[in-house]
Amino acid sequence: MIIHLKDSVTQAQIKSAADATQAIILHGEGVKLITPAALKEPPTAIQSLVESFHPTDSDIQLASRGYSSETRTVEIGETTIGGSSRNTVVVTGPCSVESREQIFGVAEFITKLGLKTIRAGCYKPRTSPYSFQGMGLEGLKLLSEVREKFGLRVFTEVRDATHVHDVIEHADVIQIGAKSMYDHGILKACAKTQKPVLLKRGFGSTLQEFVQCAEFILSGGNPNVILCERGIRAFEPKTRFTLDLCGVAYLKEHINLPIILDPSHAMGHAYGVADLTRSCLAMGVDGLLIETHPNPKVAKSDAAQQLDFGQFEQLLGTLSPVANAIGKKII
Amino acid sequence: MIIHLKDSVTQAQIKSAADATQAIILHGEGVKLITPAALKEPPTAIQSLVESFHPTDSDIQLASRGYSSETRTVEIGETTIGGSSRNTVVVTGPCSVESREQIFGVAEFITKLGLKTIRAGCYKPRTSPYSFQGMGLEGLKLLSEVREKFGLRVFTEVRDATHVHDVIEHADVIQIGAKSMYDHGILKACAKTQKPVLLKRGFGSTLQEFVQCAEFILSGGNPNVILCERGIRAFEPKTRFTLDLCGVAYLKEHINLPIILDPSHAMGHAYGVADLTRSCLAMGVDGLLIETHPNPKVAKSDAAQQLDFGQFEQLLGTLSPVANAIGKKII
Amino acid sequence: MIIHLKDSVTQAQIKSAADATQAIILHGEGVKLITPAALKEPPTAIQSLVESFHPTDSDIQLASRGYSSETRTVEIGETTIGGSSRNTVVVTGPCSVESREQIFGVAEFITKLGLKTIRAGCYKPRTSPYSFQGMGLEGLKLLSEVREKFGLRVFTEVRDATHVHDVIEHADVIQIGAKSMYDHGILKACAKTQKPVLLKRGFGSTLQEFVQCAEFILSGGNPNVILCERGIRAFEPKTRFTLDLCGVAYLKEHINLPIILDPSHAMGHAYGVADLTRSCLAMGVDGLLIETHPNPKVAKSDAAQQLDFGQFEQLLGTLSPVANAIGKKII
Amino acid sequence: MIIHLKDSVTQAQIKSAADATQAIILHGEGVKLITPAALKEPPTAIQSLVESFHPTDSDIQLASRGYSSETRTVEIGETTIGGSSRNTVVVTGPCSVESREQIFGVAEFITKLGLKTIRAGCYKPRTSPYSFQGMGLEGLKLLSEVREKFGLRVFTEVRDATHVHDVIEHADVIQIGAKSMYDHGILKACAKTQKPVLLKRGFGSTLQEFVQCAEFILSGGNPNVILCERGIRAFEPKTRFTLDLCGVAYLKEHINLPIILDPSHAMGHAYGVADLTRSCLAMGVDGLLIETHPNPKVAKSDAAQQLDFGQFEQLLGTLSPVANAIGKKII
Repeated sequence: MIIHLKDSVTQAQIKSAADATQAIILHGEGVKLITPAALKEPPTAIQSLVESFHPTDSDIQLASRGYSSETRTVEIGETTIGGSSRNTVVVTGPCSVESREQIFGVAEFITKLGLKTIRAGCYKPRTSPYSFQGMGLEGLKLLSEVREKFGLRVFTEVRDATHVHDVIEHADVIQIGAKSMYDHGILKACAKTQKPVLLKRGFGSTLQEFVQCAEFILSGGNPNVILCERGIRAFEPKTRFTLDLCGVAYLKEHINLPIILDPSHAMGHAYGVADLTRSCLAMGVDGLLIETHPNPKVAKSDAAQQLDFGQFEQLLGTLSPVANAIGKKII
Repeated sequence: MIIHLKDSVTQAQIKSAADATQAIILHGEGVKLITPAALKEPPTAIQSLVESFHPTDSDIQLASRGYSSETRTVEIGETTIGGSSRNTVVVTGPCSVESREQIFGVAEFITKLGLKTIRAGCYKPRTSPYSFQGMGLEGLKLLSEVREKFGLRVFTEVRDATHVHDVIEHADVIQIGAKSMYDHGILKACAKTQKPVLLKRGFGSTLQEFVQCAEFILSGGNPNVILCERGIRAFEPKTRFTLDLCGVAYLKEHINLPIILDPSHAMGHAYGVADLTRSCLAMGVDGLLIETHPNPKVAKSDAAQQLDFGQFEQLLGTLSPVANAIGKKII
Repeated sequence: MIIHLKDSVTQAQIKSAADATQAIILHGEGVKLITPAALKEPPTAIQSLVESFHPTDSDIQLASRGYSSETRTVEIGETTIGGSSRNTVVVTGPCSVESREQIFGVAEFITKLGLKTIRAGCYKPRTSPYSFQGMGLEGLKLLSEVREKFGLRVFTEVRDATHVHDVIEHADVIQIGAKSMYDHGILKACAKTQKPVLLKRGFGSTLQEFVQCAEFILSGGNPNVILCERGIRAFEPKTRFTLDLCGVAYLKEHINLPIILDPSHAMGHAYGVADLTRSCLAMGVDGLLIETHPNPKVAKSDAAQQLDFGQFEQLLGTLSPVANAIGKKII
Repeated sequence: MIIHLKDSVTQAQIKSAADATQAIILHGEGVKLITPAALKEPPTAIQSLVESFHPTDSDIQLASRGYSSETRTVEIGETTIGGSSRNTVVVTGPCSVESREQIFGVAEFITKLGLKTIRAGCYKPRTSPYSFQGMGLEGLKLLSEVREKFGLRVFTEVRDATHVHDVIEHADVIQIGAKSMYDHGILKACAKTQKPVLLKRGFGSTLQEFVQCAEFILSGGNPNVILCERGIRAFEPKTRFTLDLCGVAYLKEHINLPIILDPSHAMGHAYGVADLTRSCLAMGVDGLLIETHPNPKVAKSDAAQQLDFGQFEQLLGTLSPVANAIGKKII
């Protein structure tokens, strides 16, 4: 249950009400208590402090449309997604920052196309210790230079809690990777900033678990969470993962967070990315994440699935007609 | 390997060449042999009979774009899908034929909307013996009346081999359900007709197995096979199945058969069907299969996922703009 | 709900009671009605005819331990599994009957080991039309010769409804393969015999669906159903399937049918079969199905997973100690 | 490729050889280089430094039986698993440390049974922020008291990198939970200690990814890694997870690390744990992890699957006969 307390409550009253309900205290647009129990109504002892209350039937509380029906607005630099905006933000860039030359080349390409954001990772959650692990802090500093020089907003990934503060410092949007979705060290650190967080769904995780990880960030104080579906692990071996658009339909119906989709990781092959991107866009979502590399063949990670500049530019040209057809706008 | 024999070959030569290569003989646009082995070239003994040959690297042979690169054309009554057509056929109707009144009501609704096809099942592959099993032959006869009266082309499902000949007689497009995909009794009977077959992917089946079932029909003599992805079984419990659009991207790239998508069965809830339908359409496929019922609440099967007439009409109105955006045409 | 009618009821009363409850009528140890609805008690109008009734909370009725708590007894020739027996039957043989020489060789080997049953398929549900499809009726006749000559009880598989009556005629235990689990043509034919049926779980099917297919046979009049878990399709590519022993624990707790496990198909490689067989046995199940071939390297199907005679004999020697440890007996 | 360098090599030569092969340097029983590339033989320039080399065909190198065929020995206090020992260690205890009284009660119970280890978590990777998150450092200190007082060896779980050093300090065996399998912050810290690490398989992770995470620890300098299969996420809703014993058969054949199985988390219900534990034991593995709680009904986490003391004691009594039957010894 979410309990909105009256404006007049004192710090002592807040604390005592929270203790009485084993609740988490959340500040921001007033003070709220979020209780673990499936309460029907607040305990009598604290009812005089209550402005309003919102019972919930699962551990999805702040993210639920039952609590707040409109999609949340999230600001990414000067642009907005969610809320009453009709924007679909197209975010592209390479899997990894590999060198200044490489990332500046991509940034220049993106800027020419009129897009406002860039994505690239510096801490790669590689499955093998014997392959490229990312440029680390040096890469983050290159991304800050990219923002400075090109004005692009930077999406970049945190891999584990040891470098989460560096990522928070250098990113505009902090991306939590699929393999790190459950990382409480990351979730708690992200709850303490106000920068937007792009939370990717773990590929073995249910929608319930996915949104509950978002609840860790929301209930910790950061309302700026974006969900990202990027493919789940099913039995089909021909593609890297299985993009769960039925799951996206569920999220759109029940959850008040904006959604960005990542067809590149789902497919794992460049050949299907264009069709899947248009398909994702036609779901009416708030953003698209597409991997692009100046020369995919020599990419140090995810070589098979990255588009080259020509492929991306051609794809981008096809998106506005589809967006217009469903009342959305590509930014 | 697929071997095209010369026009001049005799019946005896065909038989002896087939024996030499353990091949299936396929008539139609000349005589072809389809060999099981991963041959690099035809055996010397038969080379004088060979017009041309096409090595393949898996048991997907006739359906492969490596053998024949253009999408096959399939005629559904007067309309065409695949080939150089840009058509996307919208096929709707109830899960089951329940009564003359019900199916005629749906047919009238569809006709008013200007669509050319109807779908409805008479043999339901229900999971429980204690629920409605379909109207059987009586239902098939009602569907033939519908074709007669409204001019609609009928898609209807065969459940097992005991009634496959009845379905072949009354259907315009024979639908092989997901639970029956591997049914050799059905596949063999469908290979012996020239009516189009809509083969649904088993929800636990890989793409390789799916297309290999199509090969049973193709190699048996019926070239008119349409593939239907309708959701696979993954671990997510909030939706009925998981629509595998990455798999569709694979099929579009590698397989020469037209594709129809069924978002209704994948989602299992009416609320997500409209978004998913547009998303499927944006993949650039050849058809869409959507369940519609005059009154879904009282439907005898699949009640949760069927659209009512108002919902379907509203959805249909949104499809042409998306189709236009990607160069397709709704029929 | 299962309703036991009084012995005194007339045919007319039975029919009218069944109509009133939309029930299936089941003869055998009295007359029972099985109703689709989740009734709390029988309708007033028929209460005078009711001996006793058993409400159920799902479409698993006759197979439920809630209805009948003891594991059913099934006779396989002179041997018994289930009930108060402590027997675990070891069933082995090749994937396919390939020739008289091959199947007689296997039968001789089995007989020397003192086992009482043999398994081999004649109608193979192959995924490719370009590979060996089984010997068909000729193979069934060889199996009948094997029974005659060696006294072994024959487990053999039906693939589709077109040959189900031949299989029923020649088999001692009719095996319904995983790909045919939902085949209503087969299920209905098997319901009309009293021969034991070994129903394999579809690899994409839930336990609920699996047991409901058994209900088709049970409610159709054949009480002799054995369940077989043989691996489900999960995401792991290193093994052919994933043997679901958690599911077996569920079945043992909730379902009153005997259980036979098939580690060979689950693993797909001979190397793991011995460990898995002992592991399956330690679950306390009623039987084990293991593929053995005189020369697995030349087997026409499932070559990788079949044991050779030496491997099987060595494995068999290790089973009795494990069986004794858990109070079971190998037969 | 793993390259063993000669004893005579200098530090400068090691570094230059590692640079030439982009290799990780591993000290311990001589100096080894582990190269990322699928080399056939070492580059000419360094061949004079090479004692021996071991090509590998995937990123599983140190853990492969191809490199070292015998199962590694791991010491847990005074007891040993793996190597030539025939021991199967039974590790039990509650999901979470909840209070001094609770954990001391469990320790006393375990000690009476003659077992040598205890398991309990202090940092719970809960899916909801609104439920019990574990006692943290306070719990770890209680576990150190338990070791002091009862002489039991402590298995306890690390959730994320923020507290990994506390867990390493207080644990005898550091457990990396399924949700944290990919956590590089944890893996790297565990590589720098010599304490044994129990690495649980992520429930959405392939065997390849699982063993590769072990390679991060092994190649970082800690040879004491134990693998733990605890159920993967498949489609079956009746059980919490699906225990992958086919996967265990694969690991036993190809990987040189000891294996402990966790039937409690796989099943998710107390009722199946006894059968599954015997089944796991019969696989011939090195250990079993079973959740036991003084009063499961009031447990703060995993209430459904924990055994009570009576159930555990009864189960334990049945294990030695099964162990004897397969030549193993319960410790």
